[in-house]
Parts: sequence; C-alpha cells; structure tokens
Amino acid sequence: MDRHRDKADQKFQRKALQVQEAQARVMQYAKPLGTEEVPLSQCCGRVLAEPLRAPHPFPAFNRSGMDGYALRAADTLSCHAGEPVWLEVIDNIPCGAVASAEITEGTAARIMTGAQVPKGADTVVMIEITESRESDGKSYVGLRKPQQAGSNITPVGFELQESELVLPAGRTIAAGDIAVLAAFGSPVVKVQRRPKVAVFATGTELLEVDEPLQPGKIRNSNSPMLEALVREAGGEAVILGAIADDLELARSRVQMALENYDLVITTGGVSVGDYDIMGDLVREKSGEMLFNKVTMRPGSVTTAAVRGGKLLLALSGNPGASFVGFHLFARPVISLMLGTERPLLPEMSAFIGTDYNRVNNFTRFVRARLEIRDGMLHAYPAVIDESSVMVTIKDSDCLIVVPPEARGLKAGDKVKVLKLPGELRRQE
Amino acid sequence: MDRHRDKADQKFQRKALQVQEAQARVMQYAKPLGTEEVPLSQCCGRVLAEPLRAPHPFPAFNRSGMDGYALRAADTLSCHAGEPVWLEVIDNIPCGAVASAEITEGTAARIMTGAQVPKGADTVVMIEITESRESDGKSYVGLRKPQQAGSNITPVGFELQESELVLPAGRTIAAGDIAVLAAFGSPVVKVQRRPKVAVFATGTELLEVDEPLQPGKIRNSNSPMLEALVREAGGEAVILGAIADDLELARSRVQMALENYDLVITTGGVSVGDYDIMGDLVREKSGEMLFNKVTMRPGSVTTAAVRGGKLLLALSGNPGASFVGFHLFARPVISLMLGTERPLLPEMSAFIGTDYNRVNNFTRFVRARLEIRDGMLHAYPAVIDESSVMVTIKDSDCLIVVPPEARGLKAGDKVKVLKLPGELRRQE
Repeated sequence: MDRHRDKADQKFQRKALQVQEAQARVMQYAKPLGTEEVPLSQCCGRVLAEPLRAPHPFPAFNRSGMDGYALRAADTLSCHAGEPVWLEVIDNIPCGAVASAEITEGTAARIMTGAQVPKGADTVVMIEITESRESDGKSYVGLRKPQQAGSNITPVGFELQESELVLPAGRTIAAGDIAVLAAFGSPVVKVQRRPKVAVFATGTELLEVDEPLQPGKIRNSNSPMLEALVREAGGEAVILGAIADDLELARSRVQMALENYDLVITTGGVSVGDYDIMGDLVREKSGEMLFNKVTMRPGSVTTAAVRGGKLLLALSGNPGASFVGFHLFARPVISLMLGTERPLLPEMSAFIGTDYNRVNNFTRFVRARLEIRDGMLHAYPAVIDESSVMVTIKDSDCLIVVPPEARGLKAGDKVKVLKLPGELRRQE
Repeated sequence: MDRHRDKADQKFQRKALQVQEAQARVMQYAKPLGTEEVPLSQCCGRVLAEPLRAPHPFPAFNRSGMDGYALRAADTLSCHAGEPVWLEVIDNIPCGAVASAEITEGTAARIMTGAQVPKGADTVVMIEITESRESDGKSYVGLRKPQQAGSNITPVGFELQESELVLPAGRTIAAGDIAVLAAFGSPVVKVQRRPKVAVFATGTELLEVDEPLQPGKIRNSNSPMLEALVREAGGEAVILGAIADDLELARSRVQMALENYDLVITTGGVSVGDYDIMGDLVREKSGEMLFNKVTMRPGSVTTAAVRGGKLLLALSGNPGASFVGFHLFARPVISLMLGTERPLLPEMSAFIGTDYNRVNNFTRFVRARLEIRDGMLHAYPAVIDESSVMVTIKDSDCLIVVPPEARGLKAGDKVKVLKLPGELRRQE
C-alpha cells in the first residue's frame, strides 16, 4: 500500500519528513508575541512573562509557630520540675501586631501563632506547658523545664531569601503558584499574550453542529474540538467556519486569516484527491511550503506552510489524525508563542498493556489510555485507532509512539508515550 | 507534644476524627445543585448532566476510506494482470454528496475519501491501483486484481451503534469529548450548575495583595489560592475578603454567606489560641458541628459545621495546611455538588524517592513531586513540609500519605499517593 502511496506522492511532489524534522520546521516560526498584565485572579493557566524573585525574605519576620510565650531561652536554664522559673509577662502580641517592648532578662510576652517574635526573645514556649500567676497586678508565666533557643520560631527567610527565584518566566501559572504571587504582593501579573488562532474546516460534506443530519454529510466536529484544544494549549481560538471545496474562496479566506491571526489551522483538504484545496493553496508561489508529508500515522498528509512569517498548519480532516496532528505540530507552536520552555508533549516510558501489531514503515502515534498500577505506568492502546476514528479520542490520555522498526509489540513491552494534556482518565 | 495538644483538645472539646470519617461527614451534605445549558464552545471543563447516547449510528453511512472507485467486488473476480476488467464509471461522488445512481454489474463510481458509498457497491478500490480510459464519451476504470468485498469501507455504526452510551453523566468534559458532542449535534450541552463558593480569610495580620508589607503582617495568600483551587475544582469562587478577629463581625458575615452561597470556606481562626474565631462560631448552638479535629498533619484543626443544610469548612490558616485541607475536604464536596462519581483525589501507588522520617500518631499528607522514570512512578517529598510553609505548594503534584504506623520510610519504599489536579510538574 505504501508503494502506491509513494506513486501518489510523486504526483503531488510530496517529500516525507520525519516528525522531529517537521516539528523543527514549524517551531522555528513560533516566537513569543509580547506580554500583557492581568489581575491576579485571572492569571491562573496563563504563562508568566517575567521571573518572580522574592522582593523580601519569606517569612519577612521571625514568626511564632505556636500560641505561647516569647522569651529568652537563657532565662529558663535554671528551672527544673521542683522549682519553676517565673517571668513577668510584659506584652501580649496577637497576629499582625508589633511588640510594644523588647524582651529583656526576666520578662516574656504572650504571643499567638503567626505573630512576630519580639526583639530580645529567642524562643517561643507553647502555652500548654506553662503555668501562670498574678501578683501585685502583674502577670507571670512559669516554666519547669529549660527551653532551647530557636524553638517554635520560623526565622526570617526560612522559606525564601530576598531576591531568590520563586517562579521562572515561561511557567504556566497553576493554582498553587497563586499563593506565592499573592504573598509577594502581585495584584497584577505580567503574562504572555495568548496567540490568536484561526480554525477552518474544509469540505462540502460538513454540516454545522446545530444542523440536522443529511445523507452523505457529517457534522463538523473538528472545528469545535480544535477550538477546545487551542484553549487548552493556552491560545485564543476563533472558528472561522467551514470552507466549501472552492479554491478561490479558500485562498482569500485563509489569506485574510493569516493577516489577522497569529496562527491558522485548517482541517481537511490535504488528501491526494481531486478536491485537495489546501494542498493547492500551499503549493502556490506566494507562500513557502515547509512540508506536505510526514512519516507518521495517522496524519501523514499533514501540511505546513508559512506566508508573511505566519504559519498555516493544514491538518488531516480525519478526526483522529487532526487530533494527533494538533498535539504534534500546533500545540508546540502555541506553546512557543507563549514562551514556554518545553513546548513538546512530555515524553515518558510505560509498559504497553496489550499486544500491538499494526506496524508499517511510518512512526505510529497510537491513541492510548494510561493506568498507574502498583507504581508502574501501563499504556493501553485504543481498540480501534484508525485515523478516521473519532470516538477513541475522548478516552485517550497519551499517544504510544510505535517506531517503524518495531515488529509488533507484546503486552508488557516498554514503550515511549507522549502524555496528552489534562487529567489521567482512569486510575487503579 | 501530642500529650500537650490532647490537654488543649479537652479544653476545646475536640474529638479527633480519622480523615475518611471526616470526609464522609462533609460529603453527605454535598448534593448536585441542578443543571443548566451552555453552548458547546463553553462546556469544556464542565460536568455533563445527562449521558450522551448516540442519536444515530456513527458513521451514519457506509463511508469510503479512500479516494478511488466504489464498485462490486464480484465484478473483479475474473480480472488478472494480463487482462484487466473494465467497469463503466457512471457517477462521481465527492464528499458530502449523494450518489445519483445505484452501482450495478459492470459499473463503478468515482468516490472521494469520506464520501457515502453508493448503493450496490460493496468495496472501494484506491485510485492508485486503477487505470482509466475513455471510449464513446464514456469513462471506464480498469482493474488488474480481484478485490475483496468490504475493503476501504467504514461500515455504518463502525464506531458507535445507535443509542450506545458515548459519554456518561458526571463526566468532566475534556477537549476530546467536544468532538463527539459536535458530531452528534449538541450545539448546547446540559451541564451541572457550578457551586458558588464563598471564601473568607480571618486574621488581623492579613494585608491585601496590593498593600505594602507592614511589620508583623503578611499578605492574604490563602484567599487568592483558594479562589484558584475552587475554580480548578469546577466551582465559582467569590472572595469575601478577610475578617478581622471579631466574633460578631465574623458571625454575621459567615451567616450571610451561608444563606447566599452553596459552600463557605474560611481559613485561619481555627487554632487553640485566644483569638479562635471560627472555633467559637461553630461551637454555637445554631449550627451542627461535624468535626473540629482530624487525625492528620498538616491541618489537624480543620473544622466543619453545617447550618441550614449548608456546609462551612474552616481550614487552617497555615498555607500548607489550607492547601491540603482544601483537597481533602472542599474539593470532594464541590465535586459531589457537580455530580461527579469519583469526588476524592485519585489514589495511586508510587515509590518514594528519598527517605522520610517524620512520623507521629496522625496520618501525614506530605506535599510531593511525581516523576515517571523508566515506566515507574517516583514521589519525592518536599524538602520542607511544615504546615506553615507556603513555597512547597507550588511544586507539588501529589500528596504522599504517610500512615501513623509507618516508622520511617526508606527511599524506594512503596507509598500511597493522592494525585493533585493538573499536569505533572516535571517528567523524565
């Protein structure tokens, strides 16, 4: 079959690239697009544009870790069970307050968890092991055991020193990062601008999602899926609708999109057939073809071109192939436009859960489901992974990479998987 | 130290619950809140309220998997290399079109990938292995090899039969699910209403994020973090600000919040100290205390109460403890309000990456970072995991569960981990 494909490839002047080389070609046109400031409450999921360095040590003061008494450890050295040491309580320091007096020999301050330890004190004693008494209108705290200096105090800078790197530029801000951004006083956060990504589908067979089914036609599922995938990748998606198989119309709409958006993704129209619109379009002189065939399954007809510095990615119209093509080519481009340092899908090794025998001379990206059992990662290939198949997309959380030289895989073999974004679909 | 804590617990009538029992107590008050319809483009990340069953088989028609000719396999049985069979091409079927004629003996139709196979045809032959000729104004396709019936045709219902379950109710809609929702004609999707979650912080030590640092004070990092965590869990967060340590004010504001929101979360004010506002509040008669101590570290003082059927979760004010408390108690509640079937954090086993020796008689939830290496899952405990520590939150993607009976863990020991939501922070 591949021999016959090769014949067609000659006809359409397709030269197949390895996936890595194809990725490199598109990725060189993906540069960060600039920055913008957003309120802290809106920055989760955005990419940090500047590193966050601690503007002050954290904690910023010696902090009490207990409700108790702040005092000088030296004052407790002489105490023992029979004969407590009594220290005069000269202050009461709730959280957020500042001590009114320094702790000197023979004195202590009542202090709350989280409050600033007063000057002079070098230890905090938890309230539960103290005694108290009143005398002459004064309060005293009694201790029966010597205390160690430094106990129950979190010293200045325990977590972070001033100017220490807290969050690097290029980091996708997660919920846990919000805490440090807040703690260091970032009501607005400088983030990378999201790339605006235009999504087209091509094909006269396409119905809108709200249209009733008609014989021979299918609803356009690729555009809504790509819209969701673009957003998941951190971009802003704009669905520009389906283009019927009309070369003039396709040309003008795609050119307009390339002028107005940071990236244009199309699906469909890249096959070797009579109605191969996107193929015709990128073969024209006004743009540079980066590749029009990749040694991969599904999606070998994936095509990329650049016009005026803007990328056009023409993915296969097959749902499975466009899903895989998005993750291998479009997502890294969007990631680089967002200034992230690791644009490619995370690669990991796993044990394949079942035998897998579909091999040919192209690298295969098999939709699969990860399971973690007993501390080991198992990857189960989807039962049907034809490029045309849509339903297995929804249950996949990784792609198993089956190289062409693999002559069939046995259950338990170690394989390379690319983790898809999002939560694992199922656990032990 | 725990002996002393026990003394304090008696004073405040705290009876410690196991985590599981505490989770069960709050989860019984968490019920789905109703449904709403959202446009397909807005449903990603929402929870599906009704199962999606295939309204028609998918594909809905016999679909050509190739650009080529649709014909009857029986017509090719007599052909061989020396003597091709010639069939009259009576139709041309692009994608989305319907055949104008039935295929009968001796005829064929030109057909495109994705087009509906015409009646009478039972196989599609790829164009690359055919020949063609014209004669008397008619077109003929020539074949030199017998073809198998069924080749290159994806039959009706190959992926899904009519009324087959596609997506179950309670599923969080991911990008890949959008494709099937679109394909089956769901321009609007019925999803669960998001719970409205009020977030309070308590403490006179708290500054707003945009305030300059002041001696003894800290910026309120818990509220922004909880806002992000609530959203990540699928809820709508409303920050109601910080309450100073004033019992009357706290009471009225929390009561108002319980009337207007589906869930109220507070941080701070649950310690055993003099300014223990939330403790006082839930100890009052008007609400039912569910628990005010849990046998866990961090966050043993986590408190839950119910008033008028609404839950109040009072988390520790310590950043690490409030982060863990949110994931163990608030997130499952939000998940159940969203109708998801697995509200708890996914549990898996992993190998601990380093020795870990901090054990006591409470179960410890240690912030940790997962690494997948060589098909195995390794969990590295944060270097400092005091409950008061904030910075390790940002680098954690799981919690290692260290049971009280564990007498120190050695690197390589198998441990139970709870996967936190979101992407893995780092891979091999």
